[in-house]
This record gives sequence, C-alpha cells and structure tokens, in this order.
Amino acid sequence: MYRVTTLKKLLEANQEYTRSYTLQPVESTPQVALVLCMDARINPWAAFGLKNGEVHVIRNAGGRIADAIRSLVISQTMFDTKAVGIIHHTECGMLSFTDEAMRKRLREERHAVADDVAFLPFADLEESVRDDLILYRQSPLLRQDIPVRGYIFDLATGALREVEP
Amino acid sequence: MYRVTTLKKLLEANQEYTRSYTLQPVESTPQVALVLCMDARINPWAAFGLKNGEVHVIRNAGGRIADAIRSLVISQTMFDTKAVGIIHHTECGMLSFTDEAMRKRLREERHAVADDVAFLPFADLEESVRDDLILYRQSPLLRQDIPVRGYIFDLATGALREVEP
Repeated sequence: MYRVTTLKKLLEANQEYTRSYTLQPVESTPQVALVLCMDARINPWAAFGLKNGEVHVIRNAGGRIADAIRSLVISQTMFDTKAVGIIHHTECGMLSFTDEAMRKRLREERHAVADDVAFLPFADLEESVRDDLILYRQSPLLRQDIPVRGYIFDLATGALREVEP
Repeated sequence: MYRVTTLKKLLEANQEYTRSYTLQPVESTPQVALVLCMDARINPWAAFGLKNGEVHVIRNAGGRIADAIRSLVISQTMFDTKAVGIIHHTECGMLSFTDEAMRKRLREERHAVADDVAFLPFADLEESVRDDLILYRQSPLLRQDIPVRGYIFDLATGALREVEP
C-alpha cells in the first residue's frame, strides 16, 4: 500500500480521490469547533464521527488554545458555532521537551534565536487541558455563554475522557 | 443519521468508535506536515489519502502560516518532517470579511476591543497562498532546505492545484 511520505504522493492520492468525488450538500453551518493536536495518529473524522460540514477542526502542536483564539473568534463570529471541545492526547510529543531544550536545538541546528517564542510544551496532560480551559475563559473575544469542555483522547483505547476544570 | 451538532453527540460517536478501535502500529515518524483551513467540509484523511501516523495536520482559519509557525517548528525539530504543504481552498470564509468588519462586530457583540488582533482574512485566494509561502520563507526557525509548496483545494472537484510562488 502506498504511503503519503512526500507531497508528490499526496497529490497522487488526491487525484485518486477526485475520481469518485461529488460535492456533498451541507445541511447547516457547523455547530461545534474542536481544538486538537496535529498528531499524525489522530483521525478526528473517524474518532469523533464527524461528517461533511459539521465541525470546525482546529489543529496545532498540542491542541493549545493560545494558537487557536483567532480561529475560534472567526468560527464563532462568522459561523455562529455554539460549543468548543479542547482535546489533548496520551503519548503527546509536547510531553517530551521544554522551551529551554527547544531553544537550544534551534540555536545549534538552525543558528536561530527563539528566546521570545513560547512553544507551549507541557509536563502534565490533565493540567495542560485545565490550563487551556482557563485561557479560553480569560479571552474577552470568545463566547463565554456556550459549553466549552476539555478532554483527553487515549491512543490506547480510542476513547475521549472529560477533564474536570 | 445522527449529526455531530453538540459535544454530547461527539462523545456518543466516540463511544461507538472505541468498540472497534485497535491501536494501529505506526510504520515510521511522519514525513510531511500540512497547513490547512479548519473548514468543516474538508476531510484531509479522505482528500489526501492520509493513513495512520503519516502526516501532521495543522489547521486554522484560512490555513495561515502566521498561526502555524510554532507547530511547524515542533514538527520539524521533534519529528524531523521533511516537506510542507500549505493548502487554502475555494469558497473560504476568509474571503468574506475584513479586519475592520470583524473588529466592529466584536465591539458590538462582545463589547471587546480587538484593534491589536490580525484575523488574517484575504481578498484573493492565490495571493493568500503566495503570501504564506513568503511568510514561511521569512522564518529563520523553519527548515528552508525541504520542499514547501502551496495549493488550492477546489471544493467543487475535490482537486488540489499547485500555486506557483
């Protein structure tokens, strides 16, 4: 079976996809926005039963809110989404480094100074979810009158578990 | 058929998913990172033939690089990914507003001042892809020795088309 290890293979897979593609009608605007890690092992369409047009999927390293506020504002303002799920996951790469270590590597490998960049790693998975719930609650640009919940996705079982704020 | 319109329905769908879930072995670390819009109509696993563990999927409103630099640094440093695809798409919501209009709405609807926030909308789709290629090239934190390409995903046909830098 082919693997998407290059952009060329990605384009080949996309060409295959277009052969049977038909534009699906969208029943309504999305109601939910998810903030999720970029991890290559998580397929949110399968894991969370998403279908066409239903959910805004915002993904970044760790699933951190700091990088997602602009997108959430647009989701809530332009599309009127009415719930937010923040999903971190077990075995996350963000558990494996610190800002100091990352800055040292960038200095050595890229000759670049990143002392003014926060890479948002974390040492405790539950705490990182709670931190992002707090960060959400601190933003005056985001809707505070809708459900906002935090979860951990367990790669061993495929299950979401809610983290109490 | 159920629709994921609430977090409760998302949890129900996830419970169903766990019944047949088995942890898939990952053949190698991801080789490609994608930066893509959060649009609810784009399923990158289907559209780009992604399989378990292959590709980091970074998504935000518009698929803009400005919000993706932290994630790309981590992708390239911690996981050694070796290619980047930047994918914007037709019918994007980012084509439908301006920073001024967004700030006016936030002032009126949330009583919040966002004059210091850039929401990164765009008026021209090809130009927005070229702009993000330039922004990528300007970052000293990102790898400049690997393929970085920009594409437009056409929602009418499902096809990716490369945008010349």
